[in-house]
Amino acid sequence: MSAKITPSRQPSLSGERFAVTYRIAGDESLARARAQEITLEQTVEFPGELVPEGAIRDGIVGRIESLDASGEGHFEARISYAVESAGGELPQLLNTVFGNTSIKPGIRVERLELPPSILNNYPGPRFGIPGIRKLLGMEGRPVLCTALKPQGLPPEDLAELAYRFALGGIDIIKDDHGIANQGFSAFRARAGAIARAVTRANYRTGSRAVYAPNVTAACGEVRDRAIFARECGAGALLVSPGLTGFDAMRALAADDAVALPVIAHPALLGSFTAHPDSGISHYALYGQLMRLAGADASIFPNFGGRFSFSREECRGIADGCAAPMGALEKIFPAPGGGMGLDKVAVMREFYGPDVMFLIGGGLFQAGDDLVENCRRFRELVDVA
Amino acid sequence: MSAKITPSRQPSLSGERFAVTYRIAGDESLARARAQEITLEQTVEFPGELVPEGAIRDGIVGRIESLDASGEGHFEARISYAVESAGGELPQLLNTVFGNTSIKPGIRVERLELPPSILNNYPGPRFGIPGIRKLLGMEGRPVLCTALKPQGLPPEDLAELAYRFALGGIDIIKDDHGIANQGFSAFRARAGAIARAVTRANYRTGSRAVYAPNVTAACGEVRDRAIFARECGAGALLVSPGLTGFDAMRALAADDAVALPVIAHPALLGSFTAHPDSGISHYALYGQLMRLAGADASIFPNFGGRFSFSREECRGIADGCAAPMGALEKIFPAPGGGMGLDKVAVMREFYGPDVMFLIGGGLFQAGDDLVENCRRFRELVDVA
Repeated sequence: MSAKITPSRQPSLSGERFAVTYRIAGDESLARARAQEITLEQTVEFPGELVPEGAIRDGIVGRIESLDASGEGHFEARISYAVESAGGELPQLLNTVFGNTSIKPGIRVERLELPPSILNNYPGPRFGIPGIRKLLGMEGRPVLCTALKPQGLPPEDLAELAYRFALGGIDIIKDDHGIANQGFSAFRARAGAIARAVTRANYRTGSRAVYAPNVTAACGEVRDRAIFARECGAGALLVSPGLTGFDAMRALAADDAVALPVIAHPALLGSFTAHPDSGISHYALYGQLMRLAGADASIFPNFGGRFSFSREECRGIADGCAAPMGALEKIFPAPGGGMGLDKVAVMREFYGPDVMFLIGGGLFQAGDDLVENCRRFRELVDVA
Repeated sequence: MSAKITPSRQPSLSGERFAVTYRIAGDESLARARAQEITLEQTVEFPGELVPEGAIRDGIVGRIESLDASGEGHFEARISYAVESAGGELPQLLNTVFGNTSIKPGIRVERLELPPSILNNYPGPRFGIPGIRKLLGMEGRPVLCTALKPQGLPPEDLAELAYRFALGGIDIIKDDHGIANQGFSAFRARAGAIARAVTRANYRTGSRAVYAPNVTAACGEVRDRAIFARECGAGALLVSPGLTGFDAMRALAADDAVALPVIAHPALLGSFTAHPDSGISHYALYGQLMRLAGADASIFPNFGGRFSFSREECRGIADGCAAPMGALEKIFPAPGGGMGLDKVAVMREFYGPDVMFLIGGGLFQAGDDLVENCRRFRELVDVA
């Protein structure tokens, strides 16, 4: 005998649904059982036999739309949910996609399919590839990006580095993601000095290099720093949504008082892609979710660097940055992580022109003249 | 030949350091090499040979304090960082602990050691175990917690459930973490109705049951909902820091206009503990970090339920909720996830009295009278 719930009213559902494809480790019967668990876990979180009849059982509970073999010992379950379950907010959408199921072994989110009624809640990238190209005044070639470091340098030294990078033809000069608001390069002292240095270089070159300060910060500070940065003349922003939460990035991108391109950094997100049988796929995490949450470029470690992503995983990210998602703009995949000038040709061929190349320390290793190294980077990209 | 950086000023460092112990898969020489990579990756993110001499090389770069074998094929590296690197903000502390290294395979964060100069930035749990016991007017026994569900019920039905739970002697009645701000139980309609129902039950029983609404929400909404909930008479709050970001929880706990106990839910955090060779240990994630970020109770899936945590992992969480962390209060470990009344005796013995038992669907399955089921739950806890 169980206590039964009889709703006094049924929830009103439009019938429109969104879908998540999960990759499940196991044979078909195990995969089906796990898929059925997911339909409950991600919605009612209630024993199946006790779910009330009517719209909760028929509409709120997830629905297995298909279950297909996907390589040796794995199945892909496509499960749909009522759009109403996602409640119009990104945290609850993420929760419906993978909240509790993230804690179950052997299940990975492969991809999302979001209908207009959900996508309409998310303006997504404010600039995207066309907007960033317009801002930089360039077309047809990859965007060049580098990082100001190492942590510990004073603002004036970071500004001097930024000046040289801009002089050498780098398009986007970002703070290293480890430069936050430490006393030795406090945000407000740093942002102004670096933005002015880049402007000075632009006067000299006639180019439109932009500075992207790191606004990854405490909860109430992200927006204030972004607005301060804009007032200083910064042309873009760097955010690590794994540190701030994805919704802080969404809010930043959607904020008309900020209105700057947002470059997403993968800090702390690595655990989601650490194992092929858990977490979230590269395609969905670094492609679809970054884009939904308003990133205009998505940084990730390229194959062949000091991290471990494969060519196939990097291809997944590039695909996720470009695949159709309603009216959402395509965004730049931004491979980095231990890249050097010797990798440019391979990367250019692999990613095509719609890519942002991020070379940090490698620019220092390429010769003793930093400005010259940047010029060579630029030439390699132009030639390729 | 490389471009060399000569700082115009050295960063001023106090010499005080915090430490992170990483578990690294591999033999000793591989583990040492990876530990050395971590010292650069988490700080300067710069080629080792190019790191400027002086305080950056000697103080900012992480330092391997020890490297010891830790079971078959694994080593533990204890690495220290300048407290200044963490920059006084939780996102940057998390970044220094594991930002980029989260993307490298075979490395897990085991535990943190934070000195007073860092801990002093984080008031941590406002209530902790003693504060919650005082609020509830009870001592010596575990706290009883349950969840309002399933998603899709209207506010008045959730309120009726809450009334029965409170009547039956449940201490903390929380929203299910999947109930956010959906149209069928919008936050503002729901919070008031449920808080009133619990107050009504308290009048009848003379107890002090509290309602903990789920304030996991879009970035700018978390605080507004928390304040609204408080004004309605809610006695605690539920937050999923994996969805909002840890810093949103910290800000909530530190907010004097809110001043309610915070119960942390693990949604979307599962990928951090999905694999023993990556992510963050149960001890550090569900214990230390939840506490640092202000949670008064940390929900996690108990061993033997429908999730996969082992007894040892659950022990780690309980330890992390209680281990010395400066002036930070101990917090309640809150095991749940498919628990039923039949598990109470085992859980009571395993966790001792300082635990919050979370039973959701299991309370419905224990018999046809929900109030009676709650009373039995309470008796089992009192007796044990």
